This record gives sequence, structure tokens and C-alpha cells, in this order.
Amino acid sequence: MGVFVITSKHIQQLCRIVGRENVLATVEEMVAYSYDATNMWQHLPDVVVLPQSTGQISEILVFANENRIPVTPRGGGTNVSGGSIPIKGGIVLCTTRMSRIIEVNKTNLNATVEPGVVLQDFQSALAQEGLFFPPDPQSSAGCTMGGVVAENSGGPSCLKYGVTKQYVLGLEVVLADGKVMKLGGLTPKNRTGYELMMLFTGSEGTLGIISRITLRLLPATRANKTIVAVFSDVAVAGETVTAIIASSVLPSKVEFVDNWTFEKFRGLLPDNILDSSQVILLIQVDGLPQTVEAEAQQVVDICKSSAREVRVAKDKEEADRYWQARTSHFSDISSRAHTIVNEDVSVPRDKIADFIKISQESAKRYDVPISFAGHVGDGNFHPVVLTDSRDKEHYQRALKCVDEIIETALSLGGVLSGEHGIGLEKQRFLKKAMDPLAIDIMKKIKDVLDPNHILNPGKIWEDMEK
Amino acid sequence: MGVFVITSKHIQQLCRIVGRENVLATVEEMVAYSYDATNMWQHLPDVVVLPQSTGQISEILVFANENRIPVTPRGGGTNVSGGSIPIKGGIVLCTTRMSRIIEVNKTNLNATVEPGVVLQDFQSALAQEGLFFPPDPQSSAGCTMGGVVAENSGGPSCLKYGVTKQYVLGLEVVLADGKVMKLGGLTPKNRTGYELMMLFTGSEGTLGIISRITLRLLPATRANKTIVAVFSDVAVAGETVTAIIASSVLPSKVEFVDNWTFEKFRGLLPDNILDSSQVILLIQVDGLPQTVEAEAQQVVDICKSSAREVRVAKDKEEADRYWQARTSHFSDISSRAHTIVNEDVSVPRDKIADFIKISQESAKRYDVPISFAGHVGDGNFHPVVLTDSRDKEHYQRALKCVDEIIETALSLGGVLSGEHGIGLEKQRFLKKAMDPLAIDIMKKIKDVLDPNHILNPGKIWEDMEK
Repeated sequence: MGVFVITSKHIQQLCRIVGRENVLATVEEMVAYSYDATNMWQHLPDVVVLPQSTGQISEILVFANENRIPVTPRGGGTNVSGGSIPIKGGIVLCTTRMSRIIEVNKTNLNATVEPGVVLQDFQSALAQEGLFFPPDPQSSAGCTMGGVVAENSGGPSCLKYGVTKQYVLGLEVVLADGKVMKLGGLTPKNRTGYELMMLFTGSEGTLGIISRITLRLLPATRANKTIVAVFSDVAVAGETVTAIIASSVLPSKVEFVDNWTFEKFRGLLPDNILDSSQVILLIQVDGLPQTVEAEAQQVVDICKSSAREVRVAKDKEEADRYWQARTSHFSDISSRAHTIVNEDVSVPRDKIADFIKISQESAKRYDVPISFAGHVGDGNFHPVVLTDSRDKEHYQRALKCVDEIIETALSLGGVLSGEHGIGLEKQRFLKKAMDPLAIDIMKKIKDVLDPNHILNPGKIWEDMEK
Repeated sequence: MGVFVITSKHIQQLCRIVGRENVLATVEEMVAYSYDATNMWQHLPDVVVLPQSTGQISEILVFANENRIPVTPRGGGTNVSGGSIPIKGGIVLCTTRMSRIIEVNKTNLNATVEPGVVLQDFQSALAQEGLFFPPDPQSSAGCTMGGVVAENSGGPSCLKYGVTKQYVLGLEVVLADGKVMKLGGLTPKNRTGYELMMLFTGSEGTLGIISRITLRLLPATRANKTIVAVFSDVAVAGETVTAIIASSVLPSKVEFVDNWTFEKFRGLLPDNILDSSQVILLIQVDGLPQTVEAEAQQVVDICKSSAREVRVAKDKEEADRYWQARTSHFSDISSRAHTIVNEDVSVPRDKIADFIKISQESAKRYDVPISFAGHVGDGNFHPVVLTDSRDKEHYQRALKCVDEIIETALSLGGVLSGEHGIGLEKQRFLKKAMDPLAIDIMKKIKDVLDPNHILNPGKIWEDMEK
């Protein structure tokens, strides 16, 4: 993309479109829009605009496209691959002031929302109606629905219920030239033309700005039970996951907690067991009360043959304590090091134990601390390497270790990203992880939809040679 | 696309690629490849080739692309929108001799197949391993996996389990220029680049030839129960469906049978009830035995408050008889008229009763017999108009009635096709059912992937002006 300069005339033009109160242009105001939850990059935009309608998004894009100004779409900024960092400057288009839940339709099991609705607020509104939207990334308290779709978010519950793309029924998208396009509809089955909706889902804001979303919902589950199983060995835990799923029970969540987070389970589980174990599996089954009872029993029976300790939470309070211990993993680990590098690979389920063992060897070889947490039921792991970016030598070792972990996942038939996307972080691996023909087609589709490459420039493949 | 002539030299070239025994070039041999299950169009190809490997598909496409010869991909030919008819002549590329199930992996819950595997054979192989691939179109005894993906097939079980696109993990696709591209992988979560796999899924063979497929599987369900509920009124049946789903039970199937097929239920249900009713809901719940018991009871309780008769099949034999009665609908109706026009619209669940009532009025106005069957839990209907194409006047009335039914579905917020795709049949409605911007993007994506328009020409949008 060519050189651009944002002038005060440009800022005035943006103020005319969205109102002065929805334009931020001082460094103090903009710094919060210069990074994301990856915390590995930072770049100030030239201006932040917070549109309040599809029409305003359209006008902003017409203006940006004519002037060849980069536009980086942003929601809550909670993403963890650098996707919402305005690495080329220009405009940050932040959707957080488009936060209306437009409709929740219980009969049709669908809802229509603006992109700036926070996932947790959406979940709460649905819960009041006895409804349920399964994707549950760790960032649910801050992430927004536009980002959930643009990043095709996952989370623990996706084991049973699938990821975001399996819930998108309809999208309104503002194209790079400002035109507003409607895709899909209200019905769960729709075979009208190509699956263009799926192109925008997971496109990380590089193909268009999602301005309205219709999602398929499920009836809220009536009951759930949490089972905790402690294992002395990673491989045995992996085999147990397989046995559970092969027994016709598909738990809503099967999460993996390594001994970095065992501290949080003290008082809940016997110390002597925790002291001599490697892994906790945290399992949730959900459904009708009768179902849950039967499925929990089956999970317990399977775990008992291989685990050192199996416990069913006796009530919601106990279950919540286990899940809080799991949820705290990321912030807990973060507090133990100046810098953490949080990975997001996914491997076939029969390679889980191999993956962990080989990755542990890498960490040993590079002499860096590593913690594994993840959605083990899916084979989706978030290995976290603890380091300190101020200590160049250690940081370089940490990055090399992470590279090796990614190579390991790929060599085991796994994928580069299970949930977080490519963004800035994983571009250098893209050529290894994706067929060059497919990368070429991605580029051509980008040229079709955004010929001037104004939308989220520098992401996914645009700087992959670096 | 330009004019092409298939010469005997061309045929020889194709024989060299796939072997003489895999080339059909006489009218007698080719007539079976000139129509599909729609039975509304017929067009002979110039030659039929039956490749046995990805390499052969690649060579065929290099040859066809260089010579600008149309290639119409075909599996079992069971599709019902004209999609596999070689309307522009040229080559029919039939995948039925690529019918190996390459791997079924119980631990990873996935399977890899060639495109020519018949769905029913695949289902049987999975059942032996205790596994399950949900999509279950009526054509399962003849349709092939390449077609299942290319048409993004549905069926009754998609209510609970979703459609084909929700199960595609990886694809190998031969592009129009003969290049072989690999997309996706083996894991249920994969956030590597754009969702290109989803472009080919549902593309009706217009963007590439699917040569290998990796699918996500589920553990086989352990038990199921069938509930039959008879209603005097369509609207009440519709409301009952809503009440069931709102009660947190998601049945595996909720099918709608109208009184055209009641004959098949005689001996199973009381004659006096059948004589004075409009609709039967056929409901299946599945899962663990304990689950099924509880969910069936809940469905029965809800149905009892509104249905005239509710019955739970006491065993598999009784359940099979109900389902055979439902499955026979299409062939049963077909035997009652020279020509049937089988539609495939989908409406939001809260518009089911409106849709049926308005469509019944249309049928009355045009004085043509109409039968409704469908996957009512999804709002997906297959209204069938009975006519006789030899009786021009009646046939025209029938077609007009069908047009009005489609208009009704669209005006109620529904979609042009729930399962069958656009093919030849629905092109004239595409502009009403799809944003012109989206049609334009489809065309541009076609230009990117198949610049010479050799793949399945004349389909989806290519002749929509007619």
C-alpha cells in the first residue's frame, strides 16, 4: 500500500462522519488502542474512530479507501495474536459503541447483535431467556461479538458444541469500498450460493467490517456436573480423554491443568496426591438432570480405572472453585514472569501425550519454564513459556522453544492455531502450515474484496516473509 | 465460454489418462449421466470419464482447461437441483470409481475418504467402529461423499447435529488448472488463514473437484426412541415443535408428515384419529439409554397437551415402521402423478404455520395438489406439487404455484434452498434471494479459481438471467 499522511483535514472529515466525541486523536487517548492481549507488539494509530452505525462504518471506509488510509478493525482488543494492532498506523475503527442486542428470538433460536456487544453481556441476556451461545473464550468479559466472529472464537465448550463458525447464520459486512452487503439469513439451513459468510468468519478483519451478526442459539442446558480427576502421568490422562469420548459421552468441557496451577487446588484435593501428580483433568457434562447424572457416572467409572483421585463436585460452589482454579491459569502464570509467550496449537487427539512429552523436552533443552493448559478434549493446547523480554538471551531461547513447539505440533499432524488466529504472531509459520496454493488464493480473494489493501494491513500473510 | 468440439483425438487422450475401461463415449453408455434426481432436465455429455486417482483428475483438468472443455463433476447423480447435469456438454467427471475409505480413526474421531464412497457404505463402516457421521439425506443409499460435501448435504438429523459443513475438517481439491491443493487438517479446531474449505463445501462443483475428504465424526449414539404425535391442526403442530425445543430437549429428528402419507400409518395409529387429522410429527431422541428415557418422556408430556394421539414406539421394529412411512413419502407421492416438483425452502421456526397455510392457499388458487413433508424442526420443508409435464396447462400452473411458494418463503424471512442447492433449478430466484453484491463476489471468486469457467458451467448464477 502507498504512503499516506493523516492531516487535520482528514480528522475533521472523520469528526463530521461520527461526531467529534467519537474520534480520539491524542497520544494519551490512543495508547490503549496500540496493543492487544498478546502484549508483544505496540503501534500507535493516527486516529481512533468509534462509529455508532453501519452507515458511519460505510462512510469511514469510503473515506479511507479513497485516501488509501489503513483501517484496523478493533473490538475489545482482547485478541492474542496481534490481530488488532494498527501496525501500519492509520485508523483504528473500534466497534465498542455499537453494542445493541437487536433481537433475541426464542422460537427461532437465534439472536441478532451489533459487533460491539461484549460476549459476557450477550451470554447474560441469553441466560435470562433460557438460551445459550456456546463459544467461551477466556476473554469473554471483554471480547466483543464482531471479534468473536472475525477470529472464529473457540473455548472449552467447543468440544461438545463446536466453534463460532458453527453458529453464524447471517452477517452484514461493510466492504472496503463502503458498500454494505448482507449474507445468510435467519435459518439454520441455507444453501443459497457459496459460503461467503464463512470467508468473513475468521478473516481477522482483513476482508470487511462485520457490522451486524445473526447467530444460531441453543436452549440453555438445565444442569451440569463437574468431575475432577488427578493423574500421575500425562499419557494416561490423554488415554482417559479418548476412552471417555469413545464411550459415547461427549462432555461439554475437558480441560487440562498441569502442576503449575495445582496450588489453586489445595484444600480441594488431598495434598499428597497433588504433590506426586502431573495432571488434573477438569471435566464438565451438561444436559437434562437425568442425563447429567448418568453421564457423570460414566465419566467417573472410566476415570477411576486410571486416575489417582476422582471427585465429583457436590454443588455449584465446589464446581465454581475448580473452574476458577482453571480459569486463573493464564493470569496466575502471567504473574510469575515478566513476559509470557502463550501458544495455541492443536494436535490430533491421539498425539496429545507425544506432543506434551516432546514439548517438555524442548523446554528442558532451551532451559525455559513451560506450563501446559488447554482444551485437551479437542487436542487444543495453550503452552505458556515463561520468560523476560528484557533479558534478550533468555527471551531468544524462549522464542526458539516456542518455534520448536509449533514445529512439533505441525509434525504430529496438528495445526498452527486452534483458536487465536494468525495475526502478526504466526505469519512466519504460515508457509509451513498452509498449502502455498491456498495462500495464493487467500491473496487473490483479498484483492477481490479489498483491492487497495486498506483493511487490517500487515496481518495473516501480508508480512509473512519477515 | 468459447465453442469447443470433442474429437476422437480428445477421447484417445482421455483414454490414455484414465484407461479405456474408464471412458464412456456411446450414447447408450452416457444416457445415465445426462440427468439427475430432479428429473426436470436432460443433456448428454460428449464423454464420461471415471478417474481412479487424484493424479488422474488433475490430468483430466489440465487437458480440459487447455482445450476449454466443460467438466461437470458427478457422484451418484442423486442431487435434486440439476447440479450434476452436463447442460453445456463436454466431460462428465464421475468420481464413483474412487471409493476407498482411507482411514477411520476412533481416537481422533475423524475419517478420510475418497469422493466416490457412497454415504450409506460410509455410515455402515462407521457403525462397526461405534462412530457416526450425522448428515442423512434421503439419497444416502446412492449419494457419494464428494457430492455430500459439494452440496453441503443435510437431512433429518441435522436438527440436532448440524449439516455437512459442520463436519468438514480437511479437503484435497483439484483446481481447474489441475493443481492439487490441500486445505484444513485433522483437528476440530483450526484457525489457519481464511476458511477456504468452506468455499468448496457447497460450491456445487463450480470451484474445484473434491478428491479427498477428512470428516469430523461423533461417537455413535447408544440408544434412541421414536415418538409419534398426531395433530388436527398444522399451527398446533408447529407450536409443539417450538415448545419441545424450548424445553431444553433437542431431538435428533423432528419430521413432518401430512395426510398424503397417512395411509402408511394405518394399522399403526387409530383410523378415526388419522381420518380427522392434518399432521403427524415423527420425533426421535437419541443419546445414552438414561438420557433417551428422560428426553422421550419430556417430549411425550409436551405433545400430550396439544396432540390428539401420542405414542412411543415400543421397540426398534415399530420405530422402523414409522420411519419407513416417512421415508416413503417422496416415492409414494411420485407414484401418484406423472410429474412431481419437489421444493426445498426453509423458513424461521416461528413462521412454519404461516408458511404452510399460505402455500396451501396458493395450491388451492392454482388448483394443483400439494403435499408437505420436511424437517420441521429446522423449518426446512420439501413441498411437493403433483402435476403432469405432458399437460402443458397444468404443468404451468404447477410451476407458478411453486414460484409463489418460494416467494412466500422468502417474504417470511426464509431462504431459497435449505438443502438442495441452486443448481439449474433455482437460478431464476437467485437475485431475489441473495444480495447482488454477494452474487458479484461469487462471480469474482469463480474467476479467481476457474478463470476459463470450465467447471460445472451454467450452474448457480451462470444462467440466472434466463
